[in-house]
Amino acid sequence: MFDFSATYTDQYQLAMAQVYFKNGQKDTRATFDYYFRKNPYKGGYTIFAGLEDLLEIINDLKFTKKDIEYLKTKNFEPDFLSYLENFKFSGNIYSVMEGDLVFPTRPILQVEATIIEAQLIETLLLNLLNFQTLIATKASRMRLVAGNQTLLDFGLRRAQGPGGYYASRAAVIGGFNGTSNVIAGIDFDIPVSGTMAHSFVQSYDYELTAFRDFAKNRPDGCVLLVDTYDTLKSGVPNAITVAKEMEEKGQKLLAIRLDSGDLAYFGKQARQQLDAAGLQYVKIAASNQLDEFVIKSLQEQEAPIDIYGVGTNLVIGNSDGALDGVYKLTFSDGKPRIKISESLIKTTLPHRKQVYRMKDKDGFCIGIDVISMENEENIDKVFHPFEPYKFLNTSEYKKEALLKPVMKKGEVQIKKRTLTEIAEYSKSRLAELPHEYKRFNNPHIYKVSISEKLKNERDRLINEHKI
Amino acid sequence: MFDFSATYTDQYQLAMAQVYFKNGQKDTRATFDYYFRKNPYKGGYTIFAGLEDLLEIINDLKFTKKDIEYLKTKNFEPDFLSYLENFKFSGNIYSVMEGDLVFPTRPILQVEATIIEAQLIETLLLNLLNFQTLIATKASRMRLVAGNQTLLDFGLRRAQGPGGYYASRAAVIGGFNGTSNVIAGIDFDIPVSGTMAHSFVQSYDYELTAFRDFAKNRPDGCVLLVDTYDTLKSGVPNAITVAKEMEEKGQKLLAIRLDSGDLAYFGKQARQQLDAAGLQYVKIAASNQLDEFVIKSLQEQEAPIDIYGVGTNLVIGNSDGALDGVYKLTFSDGKPRIKISESLIKTTLPHRKQVYRMKDKDGFCIGIDVISMENEENIDKVFHPFEPYKFLNTSEYKKEALLKPVMKKGEVQIKKRTLTEIAEYSKSRLAELPHEYKRFNNPHIYKVSISEKLKNERDRLINEHKI
Repeated sequence: MFDFSATYTDQYQLAMAQVYFKNGQKDTRATFDYYFRKNPYKGGYTIFAGLEDLLEIINDLKFTKKDIEYLKTKNFEPDFLSYLENFKFSGNIYSVMEGDLVFPTRPILQVEATIIEAQLIETLLLNLLNFQTLIATKASRMRLVAGNQTLLDFGLRRAQGPGGYYASRAAVIGGFNGTSNVIAGIDFDIPVSGTMAHSFVQSYDYELTAFRDFAKNRPDGCVLLVDTYDTLKSGVPNAITVAKEMEEKGQKLLAIRLDSGDLAYFGKQARQQLDAAGLQYVKIAASNQLDEFVIKSLQEQEAPIDIYGVGTNLVIGNSDGALDGVYKLTFSDGKPRIKISESLIKTTLPHRKQVYRMKDKDGFCIGIDVISMENEENIDKVFHPFEPYKFLNTSEYKKEALLKPVMKKGEVQIKKRTLTEIAEYSKSRLAELPHEYKRFNNPHIYKVSISEKLKNERDRLINEHKI
Repeated sequence: MFDFSATYTDQYQLAMAQVYFKNGQKDTRATFDYYFRKNPYKGGYTIFAGLEDLLEIINDLKFTKKDIEYLKTKNFEPDFLSYLENFKFSGNIYSVMEGDLVFPTRPILQVEATIIEAQLIETLLLNLLNFQTLIATKASRMRLVAGNQTLLDFGLRRAQGPGGYYASRAAVIGGFNGTSNVIAGIDFDIPVSGTMAHSFVQSYDYELTAFRDFAKNRPDGCVLLVDTYDTLKSGVPNAITVAKEMEEKGQKLLAIRLDSGDLAYFGKQARQQLDAAGLQYVKIAASNQLDEFVIKSLQEQEAPIDIYGVGTNLVIGNSDGALDGVYKLTFSDGKPRIKISESLIKTTLPHRKQVYRMKDKDGFCIGIDVISMENEENIDKVFHPFEPYKFLNTSEYKKEALLKPVMKKGEVQIKKRTLTEIAEYSKSRLAELPHEYKRFNNPHIYKVSISEKLKNERDRLINEHKI
């Protein structure tokens, strides 16, 4: 549904690009790292999402005639505009696979291209990856506590405008089963489902007539909303009446939905009424301001809820709202580059790099990722990134290289997976992470270390820039 | 940049629509209210935004061939699909003007159409209005404390995916001066601006060379980023050198930008250095996690900052992330409709309605909006909506009707305004609101009352539904 023009960017990218172009740096090559500084939701891990969309969009990215006409009026020069007219990203991208676990401060994705190309995709890249990663992580937290219950995304109406389209996709990567969002369902092949609105019940003189009409016309997957007037005195009894009438036609009511009140209490009461009527098979769906904490509490109370419909808190990634992902220059014109900050934490790591995950002999994460130089061979001695005297011997661990070539000379190098495949992959990776990294309160901190050689290079460059 | 198909909706809208269609309610007319329950950010007012976009999109809304093909596979019936193929919204919409002040619980917009049409636009309407209203309100709070300083939106990279496109638009309605978002600038005619990134400085061996190259190529509106290595020892002195070189060519450096550290301290130190060099005209821009509270504090400290670049906190509407707008059936098939809740606050108000703003003789808001029946004549006695024994005499006030016809039989009735015009209108409306409603901490509560006749109708319907 979107037409991503290359003007989906910040103005300064174009301004810098023209300077590079006019100063003979048109073909200067540069490398940028994408990473973030803090797991969202005070959590212990993050699920990387958005990569396959991004690669497809970069592959098709161009400036339209309308864009060029506009830029003509904004102080851009004719030779540079000709360059933009023929713009096609021709660089290389190395990345962690979509759905994998990622952790603060270490490269998730590395762009290697002409410096102009690398700048021109920056804003788009940050915009798409930051958001989908935020939402996939949120969804994953709900999946962790929801067990095998069904999780559905109902959030489009409260989403941040068309952000909702990608929220529905990212939710599936994090473990959701479906969405109410039809266009996302079509474009991403997500199972689409829904129930009924209060307005449907209100538009009839009697709730029972509304339920009957709905069941008659939509007998498959029929879910009746029972809280328009009085859940236990009117809604559930009327739903039972209709379920019994459906039985006579050989049909089955799928579920009732609760959308207000104390969901644990109403869930239990409704379950009792349904069971007493011999309707053990009718499920209970619940919605209304759900998030991972409410779902966890409902599960702990053994509320008999089979289907959770999650809206706002999922699609806006409440309460963080943004992943603090950044895109930093690490190498250009044949030289390593650094950005220095007052604190080591915010000082960037120079050079083209690789990232390794340390695993035990059974393939479980032992809680350490190591950042090394691109082709470094021995990474058995690694250092704490900000505390120079802490180091660790990693010789006993298996090492899995995480950054893989996903785009070469502008061509996508990986086979497009279905969303289900990405979600399955994500689930398998999360299974390798011990529980202590997954708890909501004060999770154990996953360590990110740097190789000795990388540490020496960083320290050398810091000293070079000292005044 | 968006192609809003009519499948930008929740699945249940289509399910309900088919039931109406098959049950002979294809032409049944219905009225829905759009309103929200809580001002965002614990504030005292909200700025309504998104209307003109919405009307344009509704005007063009249709199901594509791809949509119909998809729905064929999902249990929808041929006659209903033919209806969808020819779908064109033909209803009426009454609304508050875009940019106006709005308050919790009272109708902002009223849709009157066939019940199918009214349902099929619901999700889209909520999605667009909730988000733009959230962001315009956030922007307005920053404008309130920023005085006449320049406010720029730098948020696209941290926005919730393509939500950033509308965030840039809504920010202008709330009082922002420009954006870095090029495509939003093109489509909404917003002034586009930008500075330079750290990567630009890093890509050179020397900061001074980077500044010189940039100034040479982009002398107009040139802003130099001074904190890549050391703000006061390197960045500002180098910027001064370049500013002096520009003077020799008859050019002027526009500004320097601070993006880290204590902005008040660095702002003052940088100002001193610039002034000592005779560069009083060079402005100071600041960015880095700004919001209304940080800007207010910087203004109170008399930090010499002329331009604020605001990113994340603006475009995601931090810390709320969503406006809780709802869309409720109030009238259908010739009858008033109600949704009952355990509390009066969540019980809906039936009937087609009008909303009046009470003003004093000088045109200032006196802090009361009144909801009445559509064509009620005397609204001098009005009631508290949830406390039945509280009433008020409003005979002395001027009454301004707020809901105006903006769409009739599917045709837009209002002249499209420029964003600047909408922003100017918003500013003028905000000027009518006394200060006590605008403060951040415990703002005075703007009252929303209901007419006696509307109260009686609500109470009658509640009694009718009592079991």
